[in-house]
Amino acid sequence: MPKAVVLISGGLDSTTCLALARHDGFDVVGLTFAYGQRHTCELTCACEIAKSAGLAKHIVIEIPRDVFAGSALVGDGEVPKPGTVDAIGDEIPTTYVPARNTLFLSYALAVAESVAAQDIYIGINALDYSGYPDCRPEFLEAFETMANLATKAAVEGQRLRIHAPLLQLTKAQIIQRGIELGVDYGATHSCYDPIAGFACGACDSCVLRSKGFEDAAVPDPTRYAPE
Amino acid sequence: MPKAVVLISGGLDSTTCLALARHDGFDVVGLTFAYGQRHTCELTCACEIAKSAGLAKHIVIEIPRDVFAGSALVGDGEVPKPGTVDAIGDEIPTTYVPARNTLFLSYALAVAESVAAQDIYIGINALDYSGYPDCRPEFLEAFETMANLATKAAVEGQRLRIHAPLLQLTKAQIIQRGIELGVDYGATHSCYDPIAGFACGACDSCVLRSKGFEDAAVPDPTRYAPE
Repeated sequence: MPKAVVLISGGLDSTTCLALARHDGFDVVGLTFAYGQRHTCELTCACEIAKSAGLAKHIVIEIPRDVFAGSALVGDGEVPKPGTVDAIGDEIPTTYVPARNTLFLSYALAVAESVAAQDIYIGINALDYSGYPDCRPEFLEAFETMANLATKAAVEGQRLRIHAPLLQLTKAQIIQRGIELGVDYGATHSCYDPIAGFACGACDSCVLRSKGFEDAAVPDPTRYAPE
Repeated sequence: MPKAVVLISGGLDSTTCLALARHDGFDVVGLTFAYGQRHTCELTCACEIAKSAGLAKHIVIEIPRDVFAGSALVGDGEVPKPGTVDAIGDEIPTTYVPARNTLFLSYALAVAESVAAQDIYIGINALDYSGYPDCRPEFLEAFETMANLATKAAVEGQRLRIHAPLLQLTKAQIIQRGIELGVDYGATHSCYDPIAGFACGACDSCVLRSKGFEDAAVPDPTRYAPE
């Protein structure tokens, strides 16, 4: 079975992405990052998800707090709470983390070459998302171009492919696809600003997720904080 | 003074690069990586060099051993010892580390955005080098293109520049430039396979360095292992 490296955050998108990579026939090496995120409960979810999936290898990488600064997601400022999907603004929100996907994909590239994998899966989405620049198709294409100039494997003809199977799906479509593949969304965590493990229900991530379940007509298993 | 992020390995090239960045008028944030390299003494040199230069910030990042595999530089196999520059082969040597410069530059990109720097310096060289794919100009250009699609800063018009001032210099020219700028090469370490802190004198890195001092007609301060 060929190997693929899959970025696993513990959230809804990456967990669906993991299911898709396995459905595509890959032996998955999981990669998860502890980078000082407020929502550390996503790390617990990521480890449980990797374990449930029976991955042969799951690497958790620590990124020092010095690297990502200025983001509400690592505690620099408050997490915005638009409350509804329609209230999400057009600007890049303060939850943006500097060059996060570049760094995560670079780790995936190194691990891929180390384990002789030519495939990387990332659960980014450019429809129901927060407007982060490193979730756009043009970023992804540029990364793939760069990656294919960066490694010995690529020079020797083993082309690296980055799969972003959720890129052009709505959140509802992602959930529908995941349900078909047997994903247990109750085991995932998306909230940027959880309260004792409960989802806040009002941040970008919560409102996109909640509307996704509603649009998909799938019961929402998320445990929201009591009002 | 504008800030720049400089990759500092503790070797001859990156130390010259640091001197050039400071000469260009930048307030330098240094970045060094502990990735399981055999030649850990380069880390001690990097920290001493950063300290001597009086850098306001020097970040040392640990990369888990799982990430880079299969390289002689992290202990998977023997370091090749060509003995002379002419004996260095055309193939990418076993000291190649998977996607190393991609990962290092990605960290530099995240730190640059975090500290509001638009400039990154890397001491790579495409003339007197070992043939690593991630030292080639085409790799560097592709990385810069990707970086300028990846960040909020770039989207907002703050273009990221990657400086590789040594790219087209010979080792002798690098040394001559460094001497002009007052670099103390005795404080640097290049050997891939040191013996109790002494340079082996026979690996790619040693023979390129040694010939560089010879061609530049500069006394070689390297402490070689006794025969």
